[in-house]
Amino acid sequence: MTYCVGMMLKQGLVFMSDTRTNAGLDNISTFRKMAIWEAPGERSITLMSAGNLATTQAVVSLLDERSKSQEERAPSLLAVPSMFQAARMVAEVLREVIEQHADTGQRADSTFNATLILGGQIKGGPHRLFLIYPEGNFIEAAEDTPFFQIGETKYGRPILVRAYEPDMSFEAAMKLLLVSFDSTLKANLTVGAPFDFHCYDADSLKTGRTGRVASDDAYFQKVSEGWGEALRDALDMLPEFTLGPTP
Amino acid sequence: MTYCVGMMLKQGLVFMSDTRTNAGLDNISTFRKMAIWEAPGERSITLMSAGNLATTQAVVSLLDERSKSQEERAPSLLAVPSMFQAARMVAEVLREVIEQHADTGQRADSTFNATLILGGQIKGGPHRLFLIYPEGNFIEAAEDTPFFQIGETKYGRPILVRAYEPDMSFEAAMKLLLVSFDSTLKANLTVGAPFDFHCYDADSLKTGRTGRVASDDAYFQKVSEGWGEALRDALDMLPEFTLGPTP
Repeated sequence: MTYCVGMMLKQGLVFMSDTRTNAGLDNISTFRKMAIWEAPGERSITLMSAGNLATTQAVVSLLDERSKSQEERAPSLLAVPSMFQAARMVAEVLREVIEQHADTGQRADSTFNATLILGGQIKGGPHRLFLIYPEGNFIEAAEDTPFFQIGETKYGRPILVRAYEPDMSFEAAMKLLLVSFDSTLKANLTVGAPFDFHCYDADSLKTGRTGRVASDDAYFQKVSEGWGEALRDALDMLPEFTLGPTP
Repeated sequence: MTYCVGMMLKQGLVFMSDTRTNAGLDNISTFRKMAIWEAPGERSITLMSAGNLATTQAVVSLLDERSKSQEERAPSLLAVPSMFQAARMVAEVLREVIEQHADTGQRADSTFNATLILGGQIKGGPHRLFLIYPEGNFIEAAEDTPFFQIGETKYGRPILVRAYEPDMSFEAAMKLLLVSFDSTLKANLTVGAPFDFHCYDADSLKTGRTGRVASDDAYFQKVSEGWGEALRDALDMLPEFTLGPTP
């Protein structure tokens, strides 16, 4: 499994992805699940993926090749005129890769499906965020649904639902995301550190601050340890339940 | 879906179950998922169920009939000598019901599976808690795994993992459970109030305090509203993440 979150803020976009992949419980590895394409001053586009690793790597490689060979007639992420067209293109590539694998006659236990989060900004348009389904269709984040999760989404969802604010700072969003990732990590073996992140500043039209948070990162450890205590304090702050007298 | 939690405390056992059942999104109803058998001064046994409603109702009805007809040769929950034997009996009934339904040749979209939490105490033994699988085998709660969840377990798990303490009071446990249920409710349509509960006092050998928390219960509303705020405060208490300078 996987856990990735893309978050739409007034200040820009925040992306975070874990790096664990597994084929069975006894075959785990670390792979980067975040890819960034940019043309500074003109566009920055970030893609995160959950699902079959062969599928998602093929999608990223195809998108990458297209963006490098200028002569090719296929549109590239560095040439599409809008984020909507970028989402259409990525969705089309995803659908094709899945179809190809599914048609080979070979049957795998797991399917070849994958789900993607795509976000960024192209000159002339606003910063936008999309969730792309394996069927090749997609939805866009809006005021009511300002963030997308893919992969092992349930453990880390309650805190996002409760604490997300559209006007929070990148620093606050990173803290919130690390808490959400830590909650997932604590409950599920298929999600693992390090976590890659990218904070894209709206209207900067270039890659923003990126980095990787390791499991032994001092700040992450402080958050992970502090969060348990903070939760217990938060519980203490709530009024006590009153049980009736013993019957 | 469903959400039920059974929790082992030094003080006794706490059970909580939601009441929503659904056959598709457009067919939801309210059903009690908690059943209690007791012989005051001698035993108290609580059963909670998640899964196919026809299966779980059949299991409860069969157990109920057995416990009422004294002459029948099949052992009843009111006659088994230990909680371990109670778990074996319930598991056997569950397996039989599932097999019967699966054998009719009719095929339903959803399977006939169900998972159960069984807990209680029989004179001469300690209070014990079991998780019973549809295959008819079961596991028992121990120090390392002091609570069981069934149904839609993921949303409400992080707070349980972080805040559970074996020596917490019933009142604190009820508060913790309501927060866990509220987190699940907020994220998933297939879990719904009211919530049934039973706090069994260790060594009392009779049904303890039971009740139902409605969605418009004043305390539950206070917890639900207060928890969002408490979580945001808890986040604030954590140290700030430091992003490097913009590249």
